[in-house]
Amino acid sequence: MNPSMQKLTLRPPYLVFLGEEHRVTYAKTGKGLVDWRADLCAGQLRLADSAIDLGLEDMSVAEAVDAGVGSLVIGTALIGGALPESWLETLCEAARQGMDIVAGLHTRLSSIKQLQIAAEEGGARLVDVRVPPEGIPVGTGMKRSGMRLLTVGTDCALGKKYTALQLEKDLRDRGYAADFRASGQTGIMLAGCGIPIDCVVADFISGAAELLSPANEADHWDVIEGQGGIFHPGYAAVSHGLLLGSQPDAFVVCHAAGRTQIEGWDHFSLPTIGEVIERTVAIGRLTNPNIRCLGISVNTSSLEERDRWGYQQALADKYQLPCVDPVRDGTGALIARI
Amino acid sequence: MNPSMQKLTLRPPYLVFLGEEHRVTYAKTGKGLVDWRADLCAGQLRLADSAIDLGLEDMSVAEAVDAGVGSLVIGTALIGGALPESWLETLCEAARQGMDIVAGLHTRLSSIKQLQIAAEEGGARLVDVRVPPEGIPVGTGMKRSGMRLLTVGTDCALGKKYTALQLEKDLRDRGYAADFRASGQTGIMLAGCGIPIDCVVADFISGAAELLSPANEADHWDVIEGQGGIFHPGYAAVSHGLLLGSQPDAFVVCHAAGRTQIEGWDHFSLPTIGEVIERTVAIGRLTNPNIRCLGISVNTSSLEERDRWGYQQALADKYQLPCVDPVRDGTGALIARI
Repeated sequence: MNPSMQKLTLRPPYLVFLGEEHRVTYAKTGKGLVDWRADLCAGQLRLADSAIDLGLEDMSVAEAVDAGVGSLVIGTALIGGALPESWLETLCEAARQGMDIVAGLHTRLSSIKQLQIAAEEGGARLVDVRVPPEGIPVGTGMKRSGMRLLTVGTDCALGKKYTALQLEKDLRDRGYAADFRASGQTGIMLAGCGIPIDCVVADFISGAAELLSPANEADHWDVIEGQGGIFHPGYAAVSHGLLLGSQPDAFVVCHAAGRTQIEGWDHFSLPTIGEVIERTVAIGRLTNPNIRCLGISVNTSSLEERDRWGYQQALADKYQLPCVDPVRDGTGALIARI
Repeated sequence: MNPSMQKLTLRPPYLVFLGEEHRVTYAKTGKGLVDWRADLCAGQLRLADSAIDLGLEDMSVAEAVDAGVGSLVIGTALIGGALPESWLETLCEAARQGMDIVAGLHTRLSSIKQLQIAAEEGGARLVDVRVPPEGIPVGTGMKRSGMRLLTVGTDCALGKKYTALQLEKDLRDRGYAADFRASGQTGIMLAGCGIPIDCVVADFISGAAELLSPANEADHWDVIEGQGGIFHPGYAAVSHGLLLGSQPDAFVVCHAAGRTQIEGWDHFSLPTIGEVIERTVAIGRLTNPNIRCLGISVNTSSLEERDRWGYQQALADKYQLPCVDPVRDGTGALIARI
């Protein structure tokens, strides 16, 4: 088997399903798809007029079939994780018409009998992006061709995915061959493929990371979405395995301005950016002796515009590295050091 | 639910099942049980006169029932992992008589229909010690009461389990309250309970380690079986999570005399004992700032007796730490530093 087959691969273009959701915070996946992968989105399907409008063309299932849609992607996060009864008819119709149904629910799609039957009828797949593929091998540590960049962080949920996506965009704009490699469920929906690293069985974390960024052209860059944090009391093991398997030539440290404690683990102080750099190099050089830090990516959404420059400049001076807010500045200053 | 319920717990005493196996290397689990847990072993069941004799009383299933046996433990490793047809009748009979069937096969016992039916009839459990329990939480990093010792290593398969078992024995002999905590399948069979850490889903490694050594009396020692190696290209993530969740006050570095490369990863040199000490302290102090190295445990089975003393003395001098071969010397010199 081709190892790359062991990645989850989605079938574009997408019909973004929004149900009755009217709150943008609960439609993050759909919003992310439109922000980062507009080219993959053929339309949106809303079950109520009050549902959020992402600016895509509204489509019925029948219209999506005509438009050649490959997958209906559930673009909202569900509280509790169960599938609302009111969605089932639409999802079953899409599956019967041959569209793959893609979700990151706690409930497995295949456990919903009606949907399972509809998918069999239509020859469609039910794709749970939280479920890693079977047959992942143990990591070999063998060097692969191609260049790799990993986004790491002082904590979870502070911009590792956004930084990686912006890096991919800016690298491509500058003429580099570059691919975002998704290691989490939302990232996988955005990328159309990937491996949910945090769901892999412990022995296979670095092996999964090796599959995620396979051998490539010598000057090709994989930009790998980081997970967790190497100083995180709950998730550091995942970060460690992802770092070893990714064999990054370069990494960017992500941080959120103003955050001082590990989110949800308030009795743990955040490590400094310097500590994260030092530990990442110490661990990463086992599988890539050339690993180095390109710079710092900060989420400054909590700062006033007038405070932002001074904050970033202070970090840049302290670590003698470029410091950008990727959403506001782009990542050109980081790429300049490649 | 009581978190300790999430550990696998076996029901002693055991009937050690040896099938037709006549090679001691393939009966390691059975041999380990007799070496380390003779008190848990009521007898052995052999299907051929040529099968290995572990020196336990030979018992039929009926005799084992009379002797109050709780579990039939498969004491041999199977090549390929499938259950030989010739075993099935005996295992089914034991299950029908209410004995739990315990194995560390690749095949799940519950996937064997006849055995499943027999177990239901007898009210017996089919216990696959490779399968972690459900509902393991994410690690909290919160300090627990009681003292903890973790065995770590320069590589896999060089004596972390044996060192931990010997430490438990020697601690108890010296009047300490101490328990071996098993993190791998063979260890779990020896201990009668534990969690197969390397089979846990990535996000939950340190959480599983927290469950494995729950809060205890202030002067009680948990001696935790290490896994992998913190410099191992395939398994370091497991070692990292186990270290964070174990919160060890003390650790012992295990090493095999003469080994220079990671076994099975020949392009990777073994780290030095000094590197393992430094990295273990660096990572471990996140959840226990008092972590320290007690000493070195070497497997010197590859050395002549006359070379052994000089080898161990050189390591002791180099690191200014006691250095023992636990099987030959016991672990008293390590315990003296507690």
